[in-house]
Amino acid sequence: MDLRNEHLNLGEWMELIDSSLADPGSEPLLNLEGDEDPVYDAVFVGGGAGGRFGASYMKAMGGRPLIIDAWPFLGGSCPHQACVPHHLFSEAAEELDRMRWFSDELFFPKFDASRASILELVKLFLAGRGSAHAFMNWQTKEQLDVEYVLNARATIVDKHTVTAAGKTFRTKNLVLGMGARPVNPDIPGLDLRGVYDFVSLVEELDYEPTRCVIIGGSKVAMEYGSFFQATGCDTTIVSRSPLMRTKVLHHVDEDLRRYVVDGMRQRGMTILEEATPISVNGVDGSVRSVTVRLVTGEEVELETDFVFLGTGERPTVEQAQKTLGIEVGPTGRVVVNKRMQTSVPGVYAIGDMISGPMEMFKARKSGVCAARNIMGEDLEFDFTEFPDFLHTTYEVTWVGLSEAEARETYGDDNVIIIQMPPYVEGLDTPNLPLPCAEGTMLYAFSKPELSGFQKLVIDGESRKVVGAHHVGYGAKDAFQYLDFLIHRPEGLTIDTLGWMNELFLNPEHFVQLSRLRAGNAKLRHM
Amino acid sequence: MDLRNEHLNLGEWMELIDSSLADPGSEPLLNLEGDEDPVYDAVFVGGGAGGRFGASYMKAMGGRPLIIDAWPFLGGSCPHQACVPHHLFSEAAEELDRMRWFSDELFFPKFDASRASILELVKLFLAGRGSAHAFMNWQTKEQLDVEYVLNARATIVDKHTVTAAGKTFRTKNLVLGMGARPVNPDIPGLDLRGVYDFVSLVEELDYEPTRCVIIGGSKVAMEYGSFFQATGCDTTIVSRSPLMRTKVLHHVDEDLRRYVVDGMRQRGMTILEEATPISVNGVDGSVRSVTVRLVTGEEVELETDFVFLGTGERPTVEQAQKTLGIEVGPTGRVVVNKRMQTSVPGVYAIGDMISGPMEMFKARKSGVCAARNIMGEDLEFDFTEFPDFLHTTYEVTWVGLSEAEARETYGDDNVIIIQMPPYVEGLDTPNLPLPCAEGTMLYAFSKPELSGFQKLVIDGESRKVVGAHHVGYGAKDAFQYLDFLIHRPEGLTIDTLGWMNELFLNPEHFVQLSRLRAGNAKLRHM
Repeated sequence: MDLRNEHLNLGEWMELIDSSLADPGSEPLLNLEGDEDPVYDAVFVGGGAGGRFGASYMKAMGGRPLIIDAWPFLGGSCPHQACVPHHLFSEAAEELDRMRWFSDELFFPKFDASRASILELVKLFLAGRGSAHAFMNWQTKEQLDVEYVLNARATIVDKHTVTAAGKTFRTKNLVLGMGARPVNPDIPGLDLRGVYDFVSLVEELDYEPTRCVIIGGSKVAMEYGSFFQATGCDTTIVSRSPLMRTKVLHHVDEDLRRYVVDGMRQRGMTILEEATPISVNGVDGSVRSVTVRLVTGEEVELETDFVFLGTGERPTVEQAQKTLGIEVGPTGRVVVNKRMQTSVPGVYAIGDMISGPMEMFKARKSGVCAARNIMGEDLEFDFTEFPDFLHTTYEVTWVGLSEAEARETYGDDNVIIIQMPPYVEGLDTPNLPLPCAEGTMLYAFSKPELSGFQKLVIDGESRKVVGAHHVGYGAKDAFQYLDFLIHRPEGLTIDTLGWMNELFLNPEHFVQLSRLRAGNAKLRHM
Repeated sequence: MDLRNEHLNLGEWMELIDSSLADPGSEPLLNLEGDEDPVYDAVFVGGGAGGRFGASYMKAMGGRPLIIDAWPFLGGSCPHQACVPHHLFSEAAEELDRMRWFSDELFFPKFDASRASILELVKLFLAGRGSAHAFMNWQTKEQLDVEYVLNARATIVDKHTVTAAGKTFRTKNLVLGMGARPVNPDIPGLDLRGVYDFVSLVEELDYEPTRCVIIGGSKVAMEYGSFFQATGCDTTIVSRSPLMRTKVLHHVDEDLRRYVVDGMRQRGMTILEEATPISVNGVDGSVRSVTVRLVTGEEVELETDFVFLGTGERPTVEQAQKTLGIEVGPTGRVVVNKRMQTSVPGVYAIGDMISGPMEMFKARKSGVCAARNIMGEDLEFDFTEFPDFLHTTYEVTWVGLSEAEARETYGDDNVIIIQMPPYVEGLDTPNLPLPCAEGTMLYAFSKPELSGFQKLVIDGESRKVVGAHHVGYGAKDAFQYLDFLIHRPEGLTIDTLGWMNELFLNPEHFVQLSRLRAGNAKLRHM
């Protein structure tokens, strides 16, 4: 379907995407300039976050990119199966959690668990996800003027040639952004009905689970598990590593970790750490239980009607590896340098295909980095340091060093901690409603122990903030800027932070807590 | 009561503060070093935000401050009657609003308006406010080591002498931080039962209002009004100025204003702009109605059982003016220079006593600024530019220039707007769930028109961000840092912003929206 001269509005795009998704034999969607046999500056194989941002940037710089994607929409897995449903479900979890704690108190009615449904929220997501797709197709065509071929699988012929939708496209460079898919643990029983990962959850769930066993201890495990538990689906997490001590999470502060994981347990979740899943067991083709070897060596059978796999993701690299001969690392990710160049000149890889966190900032910036290098800039993208977050029923954010890392780096005597609840031995803090913060005010005045946690880690000698850690709500946006500020060459000193203009009463109290300390020539804990 | 060698824990402090508040004849609370006739570097008259931060900073620098406050606790009006209850009520308003919109949808039960009570939330606040007081008394004594005399009214004898609690204190400098009190409009009937301001609301409310008329169009009027309406108390705001067009609010973008005020009306509030209150009328000593002259000239009588005054605040300057002869400006605020020095050498004024916004950043930083100047630093504090916020059932934040101001400053052709919902003529955006943002996900998927508003204003020539505007949730913390970033000499360009590491899915999309545009040598709207 040639859409070049059509200017669909959002509603029309939504219908077209929905009908394309529903019909496996539907036509490719072509937005091509139509000139004879063009040579593109880059073909982006995959129009997810990395491909879409990379192609848009290249076009804006005056280059000529083409995006090819197998789905009938741009944006990739994020709005379709990953970040967006995760955030919808996490917001529901936060809300359900509050409604449970305040059941029959204040203006909250008695909590009715029968109203809370995983299936209903999955359906809410499915009914609405098309609008983001429509917007991205519209925007990329009408505002960003990028050519694309959607609803068509790309075949890489060689590094200058890609075919899709029956057409052959010639290109100077190739940018691989085909994403990743959940990877399953190697145990029997995963083909039973009732076993899901975050992709199949939104695509296939067709009943209301009553109990859940999660295999794996990833962010996805913690986030979806907290959601399931909040709906009243009793959830057990089976994780080889302690939660938040998995290899892919860096800089996790132990106090923050404890607040978060204790909070999950307090809400009724069972968390089996250093436990090994042995098998998923079924009756009549449906899940009935999971066998687990505990840290003690004992084997137990956990009854359940719902198994959720949160063991991580891995990119699909076989086609590119075979056709192009690009190097793939031991963890299955494509090897690239800081310009996103693979081992084959002219071939770039971006997003979840390469190492580093499978997060949006990396996907988008790696796409842009590839584009800018192709266009002649000499730009490196270092994603070894970044702010991070996850959701339980809380929003959890962190950046820079944990307290332990800072003590190791700067020496015990030099590291200053400023935190809420405060860093004080012997004080009767358990019922102290601090941090009394925006987003936790109702908790602070009713259930102070639920009002969150925040910690700032400072190198006392240079007076620079080297780490920030937050559990609560509403600090996520700020951590983007904190990340920038603390990683500048000049860093962010407690003096500069303490002289900022706070918007009191704010979610994290870092500005004012720093100000209370900044008068000291030799800093002290607080 | 000499507390110098007592080390009360928080619970003990709370009891002592409560009993002191309850008994008008209770003893002063003394935390004094006890040496013979000391001369302080500064006596801070008033231990609110400004006095407490200023004194703490001075002490940390090696100076010797003394705080005197008439209340038995430090921290001033913020935790007692102002910011903290406001934030508790605003959080309740946000939650009640969500519960109304989703009544009998998803996991939300049918909304039961009879459960929502202004009085109950006032009582919740009163029951809990003491813990913040206790913490500040404890912290200021035990962690910050600042001397104080509480529960004792200070009498300024001259600029080197203050008496309180039967003692005379000698000082090199005087820092006046006595705060401000609500100022009433000059109309008859304000002595009737049922007329409140934000102070008397928390101190004296003893019934459940069913209808409310708010006199005034201040932030307090908008914030408390939104709360009253959310509880089901039908609220009418009577304001001489259009809302958010009052003199004290700067940089209010018209699109943001419209989103906010339309949202208040959509929730059932009546907003009478350019209207003049004539009288509050009563029967048997209780409020029965308010007479208002509308913009048309017509006079109407609004029936009500609750009148709330939101007409602003004014400091109490008479004693200091008479005793010290300090200059007071035409609006009743003490005149100071950028070092917080009044017209009388050695006398400083801070916080709500001076001009500028009655916000916490100004209170605290003016106190610190006075302290640092007294200690010999040459430091100026310019509070003419600052980020601002208010709450309706939304969190509303803004910093820098409005679109109109930017167009005036940089020229129509140079100003670039990036916003959500996007800046597009003719597109079917009304049902576009954008900004699909953290905190508005449930809205985005169910009631897209409620999912907020965000706008970035850029000077296309320098590529610098000159304004940012947000309606939603969870951006308040970030705006502290945005304020710092855009007001640096080098500013914040779209290129730098677009290369930050976003924590997707984030409350404001400024990082990613900038990145999508930053490839353009000549920027375009979006």
